[in-house]
Amino acid sequence: MPATEPATAETAAPSASSTRSVSRRGLFGALAGAAGGAAVTAAGFAIAGGAGRAGAEPVAETIHGSERIPCHGAHQAGITTAHTAHVSYLALDLLPDADHDGILRMLRLLSGDVEALTAGTAPLADVEPELAELPARLTVTVGFGRELVRRVDPAAVPAWLGPLPKFSRDRLDEAYSGGDLLLVIAADDPVTIAHAARFLVKDVRPFAKPRWRQDGFARARGTESGGRTMRNLMGQVDGTVNPKPASSDFSGLVWLGADAGWLRNGSALVLRRIRMELDTWDRVDRVGREFAMGRTLREGAPLTGKKEHDEPDFAARDSLGFTVISKDAHIARAHSTDPGERIYRRAVNYDDGLEQGLLFACYQRDPLAQFVPIQRRLDEADLMNEWVTHIGSAVFAIPPGWRAGGRLGETLVA
Amino acid sequence: MPATEPATAETAAPSASSTRSVSRRGLFGALAGAAGGAAVTAAGFAIAGGAGRAGAEPVAETIHGSERIPCHGAHQAGITTAHTAHVSYLALDLLPDADHDGILRMLRLLSGDVEALTAGTAPLADVEPELAELPARLTVTVGFGRELVRRVDPAAVPAWLGPLPKFSRDRLDEAYSGGDLLLVIAADDPVTIAHAARFLVKDVRPFAKPRWRQDGFARARGTESGGRTMRNLMGQVDGTVNPKPASSDFSGLVWLGADAGWLRNGSALVLRRIRMELDTWDRVDRVGREFAMGRTLREGAPLTGKKEHDEPDFAARDSLGFTVISKDAHIARAHSTDPGERIYRRAVNYDDGLEQGLLFACYQRDPLAQFVPIQRRLDEADLMNEWVTHIGSAVFAIPPGWRAGGRLGETLVA
Repeated sequence: MPATEPATAETAAPSASSTRSVSRRGLFGALAGAAGGAAVTAAGFAIAGGAGRAGAEPVAETIHGSERIPCHGAHQAGITTAHTAHVSYLALDLLPDADHDGILRMLRLLSGDVEALTAGTAPLADVEPELAELPARLTVTVGFGRELVRRVDPAAVPAWLGPLPKFSRDRLDEAYSGGDLLLVIAADDPVTIAHAARFLVKDVRPFAKPRWRQDGFARARGTESGGRTMRNLMGQVDGTVNPKPASSDFSGLVWLGADAGWLRNGSALVLRRIRMELDTWDRVDRVGREFAMGRTLREGAPLTGKKEHDEPDFAARDSLGFTVISKDAHIARAHSTDPGERIYRRAVNYDDGLEQGLLFACYQRDPLAQFVPIQRRLDEADLMNEWVTHIGSAVFAIPPGWRAGGRLGETLVA
Repeated sequence: MPATEPATAETAAPSASSTRSVSRRGLFGALAGAAGGAAVTAAGFAIAGGAGRAGAEPVAETIHGSERIPCHGAHQAGITTAHTAHVSYLALDLLPDADHDGILRMLRLLSGDVEALTAGTAPLADVEPELAELPARLTVTVGFGRELVRRVDPAAVPAWLGPLPKFSRDRLDEAYSGGDLLLVIAADDPVTIAHAARFLVKDVRPFAKPRWRQDGFARARGTESGGRTMRNLMGQVDGTVNPKPASSDFSGLVWLGADAGWLRNGSALVLRRIRMELDTWDRVDRVGREFAMGRTLREGAPLTGKKEHDEPDFAARDSLGFTVISKDAHIARAHSTDPGERIYRRAVNYDDGLEQGLLFACYQRDPLAQFVPIQRRLDEADLMNEWVTHIGSAVFAIPPGWRAGGRLGETLVA
């Protein structure tokens, strides 16, 4: 999943990469320079060797495992910061006796853990410190479910925090739904994620137990150039229309405002597990697939355009008088004329061997006013419904970011 | 998992990478050159942009999704060729009516599919051709279970092809054991693997149905420099002692000889799913961990040495008269004085959320003479046994490689 959006001014400034290109002769000098010169991020070059390159002269390859994304800022990292190759969503349920004080202690632990792990240093209690050394742009974004907020302060629970209204086509499985605490663990490296996930679960064990975990992926870093919109496992370009974090209206769509109390500068996350019915999708030809989506498969262009980011013309008609983009095509049903009815998406693929699909995540101020009306329209008549089924659903309040010396969730739990 | 071994002369020459380093000024020239100049492998550079780099000037990053490893050669690719970040093992069971002719047709299909997918071109029947375009060093290694060989020619079944003798500590789960046909799908990119796995399963569906799939991973490409031995999820350096494909004795250990009939230039694969009991491992301090393994955690050096590749001295004693490396340490039990009792390992980690461990794969001429005696010793007394449990086991005959115009398994099925 390529990184397409520049950070907003409000976003914690991500690390400036020191990945540099060097001439082959300059390689060893660059190695020395990289070791000494990078303040925020260390990056180096390696002589790529081994079986894959037998016979070729050694070549330099960018090595980026040391790159880090700061966890501090007005907003939590992992929402508008760089897209990474792997994202794991991990939900936990609070233990019965985890009260205000327990939650406070848990958030203290989590804050320190996130600060250490994202910086590539092992937290004190880490018994596999060597596995913490390469953060590979690790971010850990923490979300609160309804029950966690309720235990701290019932009056602080936003109206939207809880199960979404039911959609007629939902086939929700409890194994992928709900949860009191969410950890979104993202990095370019799967070993980094495995270690961070295990360490964090272990550290909060006195307070919460795992409920579900869903692992997602996009293209590995370096597989293709950045700036591409990802392709999902149906082969579609997925996520073209998305508000840009740098745009003037982004804040009003995604970050909660001063009237949101403890959630100011926070957000609301909706996570949907969308199973793809690939066996039946396989039987649809390319014309049928493009008709259902309203976009071409190769470019992801609207059927009324040529390029991915061309504006769809929902009114354009063909020679027979039908709209070129069907009224029930996915992009027509997803489209809203209300500019406030937009969401910020960050989706990844999943494939557990038996089942493939999309971990569809979106951030917004208010799911009931943003995600729900869009999904209502899709639920009613999207042509794609024949091949996608929502089987998991969860909503979390995403508290604002924090500073060094501060703490995750400090605006809620003191 | 770094690529550490150069290819043997017998190995299909892997693609010479055209990944090159360039000065920043030379970037656009290099882009043009890469597009025109790479015969076997295309590689380019990209301006890395987006949220992760806001504020930094654009930097060049090696883009390697187009790199390919040829599937043709004396041996199948994926055994001694480059280690990749992701490896999926997929076992299928033959349908009851898949006879000699069905198996022949299936192998014809598979051969064409593997040739196309590893070259980054979509097979004819591929309905998501865009997902086939970036092979990211994809290899597909095919193995035959006992039942497949028996259906073709009962006299061709090697004595070692079938379930291994039972080990006392085995806790085997059928869900991770056995199988008639194996596909080992390896690449640096998880989207490439998801697409290849799904396409191949679909294409052989008239002949075989999926039995199990096990997904493994090592460090993502570019996370760290090549040449490192991988670290497993216990934090140990894992796989230090391994015969080198370039060494003179490799062939005699791994590739079957002229007396092996249809398996000449093939091999025998043992795959073991080894669950790690990380909850109890967490309670062991570093001294205890190093004692159990016989190696240091940080360097992976034997306790009698300083560096990873130092030769362990199993006779060395401490001031109290005890051997420095316990007789029951993992490396002492795994060690054999018989040079023929060695295996070629290619392990990857697994983490399915609930369970973590190692997909331990090894290649050899004869599992009964090579893997079994080693595992017998470990099963009897390895100190590590308290924290590892073998829960899956499978043995496959790996037929030799094939040439363009030829076919997978042509020495068995004609």
